[in-house]
Amino acid sequence: MVSPHNTNGTTPTKPVAHVRYELITLGDELLLGLTPNGHLTFIGAQLGRHGALLTRNVTITDEADAIAEQFRESWTRADVVITTGGLGPTCDDRTRDAIAAALGQKLVRDPAIVQHIEDRFAAFGRKMTDNNLKQADRFERGEVLPNANGTAPGLWVEQDGKVLIMLPGPPNELQPMFTNQVVPQLAKRGLLSAGEAYVQLRTAGVGESLLETRLQPVFDRYGETLSVAFCAHTGAVDCRLSSPSGKFSHVELEAIAAECAALLGEDFVCFGHDTLARICANLIRAQEKRIAVAETATGGKLAQAFTEVCGACKFFAGGVVCCTNDTKTQLLDVPESLLIQHSAVSEEAAVAMATGAAETLGADFALAVTGFAGEATGHGSNPIGTIFIGLFSPGGVWAKKLSYPGPRSTVKVRAVNAALDWLRRELLRLQRGDTITDRRSNVMR
Amino acid sequence: MVSPHNTNGTTPTKPVAHVRYELITLGDELLLGLTPNGHLTFIGAQLGRHGALLTRNVTITDEADAIAEQFRESWTRADVVITTGGLGPTCDDRTRDAIAAALGQKLVRDPAIVQHIEDRFAAFGRKMTDNNLKQADRFERGEVLPNANGTAPGLWVEQDGKVLIMLPGPPNELQPMFTNQVVPQLAKRGLLSAGEAYVQLRTAGVGESLLETRLQPVFDRYGETLSVAFCAHTGAVDCRLSSPSGKFSHVELEAIAAECAALLGEDFVCFGHDTLARICANLIRAQEKRIAVAETATGGKLAQAFTEVCGACKFFAGGVVCCTNDTKTQLLDVPESLLIQHSAVSEEAAVAMATGAAETLGADFALAVTGFAGEATGHGSNPIGTIFIGLFSPGGVWAKKLSYPGPRSTVKVRAVNAALDWLRRELLRLQRGDTITDRRSNVMR
Repeated sequence: MVSPHNTNGTTPTKPVAHVRYELITLGDELLLGLTPNGHLTFIGAQLGRHGALLTRNVTITDEADAIAEQFRESWTRADVVITTGGLGPTCDDRTRDAIAAALGQKLVRDPAIVQHIEDRFAAFGRKMTDNNLKQADRFERGEVLPNANGTAPGLWVEQDGKVLIMLPGPPNELQPMFTNQVVPQLAKRGLLSAGEAYVQLRTAGVGESLLETRLQPVFDRYGETLSVAFCAHTGAVDCRLSSPSGKFSHVELEAIAAECAALLGEDFVCFGHDTLARICANLIRAQEKRIAVAETATGGKLAQAFTEVCGACKFFAGGVVCCTNDTKTQLLDVPESLLIQHSAVSEEAAVAMATGAAETLGADFALAVTGFAGEATGHGSNPIGTIFIGLFSPGGVWAKKLSYPGPRSTVKVRAVNAALDWLRRELLRLQRGDTITDRRSNVMR
Repeated sequence: MVSPHNTNGTTPTKPVAHVRYELITLGDELLLGLTPNGHLTFIGAQLGRHGALLTRNVTITDEADAIAEQFRESWTRADVVITTGGLGPTCDDRTRDAIAAALGQKLVRDPAIVQHIEDRFAAFGRKMTDNNLKQADRFERGEVLPNANGTAPGLWVEQDGKVLIMLPGPPNELQPMFTNQVVPQLAKRGLLSAGEAYVQLRTAGVGESLLETRLQPVFDRYGETLSVAFCAHTGAVDCRLSSPSGKFSHVELEAIAAECAALLGEDFVCFGHDTLARICANLIRAQEKRIAVAETATGGKLAQAFTEVCGACKFFAGGVVCCTNDTKTQLLDVPESLLIQHSAVSEEAAVAMATGAAETLGADFALAVTGFAGEATGHGSNPIGTIFIGLFSPGGVWAKKLSYPGPRSTVKVRAVNAALDWLRRELLRLQRGDTITDRRSNVMR
């Protein structure tokens, strides 16, 4: 059982893992598919990392009746209700009024919030229009969560032995408000704990069903009280272990996860949430080396995977996104004759691009991706979905051909993940000191 | 009112806009924030483009009881229930069993599906493990939606005058299944129409509240039966017009939207869903020119924005992602002395990078982004969030300084959108034939 980290001395009525959290995300733009529901991703992850599980997320329209109805339903069922969106200045922002009515509370205009909004407009040199004023309304019996990055503050209400948290929709306003204000307040009330709710193993290169079959002997030893879940990403599968009954402690779950990792060998990537790019980055930095990339089919996605990692400048030499043969020749020194003889989508081109990227960008490692991601018609034996990856390392330079079904966006993500996973395996082999012969045979499998 | 496009001759009981669609997305990984809920985005958009509105999306855990309970609730309320996920091979895939029990239906193993799964494993040269077999179970009274890109097929049930559609979780399997099978089947039953449910205007460079204030005179002329909604993205705001009461036809909504667009001038980007990059791409292609990019702070995101556009090779010359001064000097011919004198984060560096990108990549236009996106500590008068954008065009080369609050990921998206919007305005001015003096004064505002 997750032990609640209770900083104010009172005992919470439930263990944190059994506190019922519901999230109501408001906005027609979510239901119309115009904006991804990033609040679910962010808030779900934040709660999970503090030992709590979001039990339900409901997305509904901006209509006042729908908001009130859904709020009443969630308020009856949950211990903590979080709402996002609908606190803004425009006519379709109706959350504050609808929920105040449902709770039987009055809204009062807060002069301090009015001042904050006026100051904010003044700071940006813009005129405040009158529709902004309703953002200064707060619950008569409730707290205000100041908004450092926008006009509408968050609202916090405790009533009926439950907690209501209302947050503004823009992610750059919501996220710091949640991390800096909501998490500490919930922890203080014993509604969050210090540890995660589960242990996650990240794997690459193994399909979901085979992964389960390979790990089943471990799971069988611990019986049905061990809860196991799989999540397949494009080219990677995560396996999560948890113990809803509380039979296994977090430390015991970690030990079981370590058994699984040992069984998987090199197909095990990491515990937790690190990206393949970050794992590669750690290995490259440990070897005091640098990497460069050259890409056509992935159009900048591979460079971006590396630059998303904090401190990227320390290990990422740079990248070239090339669409034309001229670019490959001019920036990467790929011989024009090679491109004519073998075509730009070939093992030879991938090898030349990787080598060129390492040399022109002064890097020790380089990845190159070329192929038909789905836009072109493909070519003879290389139909759409054909990708060539080139890998340059201190141990040699290789290319391999891969073939992916599915739409262009999927092919791109798979190509990026395959490239990163290949690099990861090569870095592990260099770290172990495998000979080139070992490495070559492994690499080409 | 949206008129239903009914191809089989029978009259549907409701207009399409009033058919209640509910989406149940299954998977602890969604609630734990490990995977974004892309199914909501995709299915919501698909329905919206066919005149239907998703009224509710509920995300719940993989537990059989939770699935059955939520399904019963949605089945009572909705006309069409769509579920995603939980049809796979592993132990946490429980949707099929739970819903069969709730519907009082038996599951039968379908030999044709077994064959499909075996063939698929054989084609990839992998051994089929036994846990895969349960994916071949289908409802006794229901149809199968074949899965061209995976093992688990979709399921289609009509019962109690309602439709149930169960889809597999992986997006590359779900999406073609939805587009090619589900949409035509729903249209055939009069549950989808040919037109969109709303008209959308995309704007850039204006805040949400100011946009509403500027458009209010138009809205006022049409009264409260015109439904207006705003959605702020990072650096762009969308405005959607719809008519839930059916008072305004789609053609009338388009005319109202055109009035709004005229009022907004250059701040109006487009009708519909085109990205800023696509709008720029259309303008560049119309002028038979090409663009290149050079980026540090956005780390590949700007190149990716252009390469996401279909046919990118026709207008996108390429991009350089540079982390070090060496890269800027070597690949972009930025003088080392300039970087030493003015620093790599300066207007001078942005101008030199844009010029270098255009020249080395042989492009007519170039965008450059340099700055402190949030990782570094910033520098003197240029704190974190300071971004310099350089724009090279046949009319000249300029740079401007911008400053964004918020986390690194937000700063990056804002920088990309600001760069694209600046390019868009410059392309419009060139198209109109403004003089350099006009353009210069506009650009620097």
